[in-house]
Amino acid sequence: MKVYDVSVPLRADMPTYAGEPGPQLDFPSRLSRGDAFTISTLSLGSHTGTHVDAPSHFLDGAPGVDNLPLDALVGPAYVAEFGGDTHITAADLDSMAIPGDCQRVLFKTRNGRFWDDSAFHTDFIALAPDAARSLADRGIRLVGIDYLSIEQFQASPHEVHETLLAGGVVILEGLDLRRVASGGYFLVCAPLNVVGAEGAPARTFLIDQNP
Amino acid sequence: MKVYDVSVPLRADMPTYAGEPGPQLDFPSRLSRGDAFTISTLSLGSHTGTHVDAPSHFLDGAPGVDNLPLDALVGPAYVAEFGGDTHITAADLDSMAIPGDCQRVLFKTRNGRFWDDSAFHTDFIALAPDAARSLADRGIRLVGIDYLSIEQFQASPHEVHETLLAGGVVILEGLDLRRVASGGYFLVCAPLNVVGAEGAPARTFLIDQNP
Repeated sequence: MKVYDVSVPLRADMPTYAGEPGPQLDFPSRLSRGDAFTISTLSLGSHTGTHVDAPSHFLDGAPGVDNLPLDALVGPAYVAEFGGDTHITAADLDSMAIPGDCQRVLFKTRNGRFWDDSAFHTDFIALAPDAARSLADRGIRLVGIDYLSIEQFQASPHEVHETLLAGGVVILEGLDLRRVASGGYFLVCAPLNVVGAEGAPARTFLIDQNP
Repeated sequence: MKVYDVSVPLRADMPTYAGEPGPQLDFPSRLSRGDAFTISTLSLGSHTGTHVDAPSHFLDGAPGVDNLPLDALVGPAYVAEFGGDTHITAADLDSMAIPGDCQRVLFKTRNGRFWDDSAFHTDFIALAPDAARSLADRGIRLVGIDYLSIEQFQASPHEVHETLLAGGVVILEGLDLRRVASGGYFLVCAPLNVVGAEGAPARTFLIDQNP
């Protein structure tokens, strides 16, 4: 068994969507200042780094991150590599070897290289609206991508998010898939269970059961 | 396969160690106020709810939560039920059916009932120093408990924490084990990977592979 951490480290200078403030760590108590122990407090946007979107992110009154189904977050997943340089369309999905019974799919694209840079890049690969429709229609439970949004920058309306969230698909954004090859894994996506939040940072592991 | 969420929900009125401020959720953008989407920011102590302690919590200059080994956080674990009403001693460990090859042990005690209350209880069951020594000597990689500290309230010195952390044992505190029976599971402890922090909230799942 081999465990891959496909989440990005949280640090103040990390890239964030549209340059939102990064995570902030403060130390009310610190050994190096003579205190008896070190204690920090953390502040961050709920969509920082590797994170999930819940339906309430775009759908007023819909369930929050505390109501995401565990059986969508945990289970077999397929990493699909996309070599193209445009948004992923429904036709692109048909050309990928996504297994017919796949319930969780993570897209590995050229976005990965953006993690080397603390600036936010707007020209990331995302899903086209017809791909979102196709994934929801297939009964996919969770869809992930390797940069900070599943939808192209400044889309209006937010058709991709709305289609997926209304279709009961968990959106997992901000993955770093550079170290994993395409293929099947066991996914554990573990968002903080923040009551009433529309998203949450999520440490995410891919377990290769037959390395 | 059955997945148990053994982490506690994060909410403003949850019990916190010594009554520290609870998590705070703010909404810079909100659908219900006419914004195009809902976005929150989260602030919380790094030792809120279900969380891990890294060596740097008590050992100056030691590794932080971003250096916890994945192979301690993920793997087979044993839930050991303790029926006593005092701190768990090394002799108590010997009377539990902890398998000899066990690397991760989670203690289920009468603490669980405290989660029903938003007040912090100081009379929680913890490890006695000789139990911490015994676990470190056995080569345990991770030890968990079902309330907010592995060490009795206001211990001085912090012998239990120091023994475990110096021994390379990951400490997992704030579990809710009420829904799981004693026995073997597959543990996935997924702390936020906060660079430079001495602890982090950790969504934690126990997977029963033969339910």
